[in-house]
Amino acid sequence: MSDIRILHEADLRARVSLDLQAIEVVESAFATLAQGGVEMPPILSMHMPDVNGELDVKTAYVPGLPGFAVKLSPGFFDNPSKGLPSTSGLMVVLSSETGRVQAVLLDNGYLTDVRTAAAGGVAARHLARENASRAAIFGAGLQARKQLQALCLVRPISEAVIWARDPDKAQALAAELSTAELTVRASADPAEAAAFADVIVTTTPATDPILRADWLRPGQHVTAMGSDQSGKSELEPRCLARADLYVADRVSQTRLMGELRAALNAGCAPDPETIPELGDIILGRHPGRTDPGQITIADLTGTGVQDTAIATHALAAFSTEV
Amino acid sequence: MSDIRILHEADLRARVSLDLQAIEVVESAFATLAQGGVEMPPILSMHMPDVNGELDVKTAYVPGLPGFAVKLSPGFFDNPSKGLPSTSGLMVVLSSETGRVQAVLLDNGYLTDVRTAAAGGVAARHLARENASRAAIFGAGLQARKQLQALCLVRPISEAVIWARDPDKAQALAAELSTAELTVRASADPAEAAAFADVIVTTTPATDPILRADWLRPGQHVTAMGSDQSGKSELEPRCLARADLYVADRVSQTRLMGELRAALNAGCAPDPETIPELGDIILGRHPGRTDPGQITIADLTGTGVQDTAIATHALAAFSTEV
Repeated sequence: MSDIRILHEADLRARVSLDLQAIEVVESAFATLAQGGVEMPPILSMHMPDVNGELDVKTAYVPGLPGFAVKLSPGFFDNPSKGLPSTSGLMVVLSSETGRVQAVLLDNGYLTDVRTAAAGGVAARHLARENASRAAIFGAGLQARKQLQALCLVRPISEAVIWARDPDKAQALAAELSTAELTVRASADPAEAAAFADVIVTTTPATDPILRADWLRPGQHVTAMGSDQSGKSELEPRCLARADLYVADRVSQTRLMGELRAALNAGCAPDPETIPELGDIILGRHPGRTDPGQITIADLTGTGVQDTAIATHALAAFSTEV
Repeated sequence: MSDIRILHEADLRARVSLDLQAIEVVESAFATLAQGGVEMPPILSMHMPDVNGELDVKTAYVPGLPGFAVKLSPGFFDNPSKGLPSTSGLMVVLSSETGRVQAVLLDNGYLTDVRTAAAGGVAARHLARENASRAAIFGAGLQARKQLQALCLVRPISEAVIWARDPDKAQALAAELSTAELTVRASADPAEAAAFADVIVTTTPATDPILRADWLRPGQHVTAMGSDQSGKSELEPRCLARADLYVADRVSQTRLMGELRAALNAGCAPDPETIPELGDIILGRHPGRTDPGQITIADLTGTGVQDTAIATHALAAFSTEV
């Protein structure tokens, strides 16, 4: 019986990156989820209103993998005023054979950042037009950066525009992300930003929609990844009616906490029974985008199977040691 | 920002014991739970049938405590054939102020053993007759030992009898637990064992009842602590009808996974709306036992607030260091 491995954030940052390998790991996890056999219980969610905090616990068991991860994701929204990020947490990896703890990944949410952005890359790889070169990112936080980075790994993005509620943050992020290969500018007009892009990624904790259906144009792909609670919503519900194809990471989740929730309430959602999941498209069970003129939407709420996948990937990165 | 504290099983065993202090910590947790304000979401439960395993995740946030625990309890039932215990796991303590991880208690289930037995002590302290001196323990596993130990901390137990499906195990445990102050014998007849006792504790994973209603006699207290899954049941449902008082650790749990479940199905349960919880009795909101001739039952399924309480207690035992 081997010892329990304790890995700290700095170690994990040094060995695990948002790269094509991470995207493939997450892609494979979605395929496995769609294939069946994965156990993925509903998210445990605890609200602590008196301290403006919440905790989510996600897990998934994937038969055949040596371990499964349980992820604790706390969000404490007064933290920024204390100089701390709102989110942190860790992942615990348990043996699939004995249930014994194999590793504790003290990542403070880093692996979540990677697997969340990687899922955006997977969605764009399967739904955005192959020649998509212009991106619009809504939001100016950590996932704004990472989602743009993931897009660039899977599509020939050469220009990007950033819109955020705080124009200064959008400006600062645009300046930070601009390189010789990638021109990034800020826009104060979300309609202009949306109209500009082949791929739009919304990365905000918005509770009122920030992307209007009227702004969408043929050929665009939208990934909405900011909503992960039943009170959040980034897309005007009519976006789902306007789209030719709406894809969920997990329908049972997006109907509770994703963009599908508000659209169902507004009566302009597709029939949940007919909605494909990302894994169905990866597996070729659903054709996905069939025409460059179509509008596609991917709704990502985050799944335990991504956590088990990225934790397994992270542990493998250390397996040559010991 | 302080470092994350990693505590191993041996450290925890050296500093945290099943003693009166542990019983008081758990008692106080039940009182706080009954007072309200505690956030305790439903248990996250995942079944992994292909490896005969399961995982439970419990948590509770208690306003005013510096931290809250999240407990991972895996049960892998093929482990004994590999020379490993079925259960293991860990607790993570997060800051109530920032959500940051404060400590990882790699206890392999030890703190759960302590808080579970301590809850048995709390139940007996509030429901068994003050002069209860004879105990019957059903089962011969770890909790059989610990529950008897907890009883001895709160009542003047001088004689105990052990019944188990495997008579050899009962014999061995009786021999092991006998001391100058405590006579322990095994019984091959569960009816005789039950009739002998002032306090009966059932500690088995039985799916078919092991304690019959006809065996109960006036003045007895029964604690059933083995059932923590919807398929388990230790008490014949009529026991609940026979008892003068049925008390739950948490009614919302015992109706799903405790003895209340089968009794509700059999139509011989008290009205769930009128059932007191252990904390109500600790707080004096419910009188509990009002006559030495009454039969009382405590149904314990295990609560996240016990985990947060014992984890806080354990961390305090190390707080003089650093």
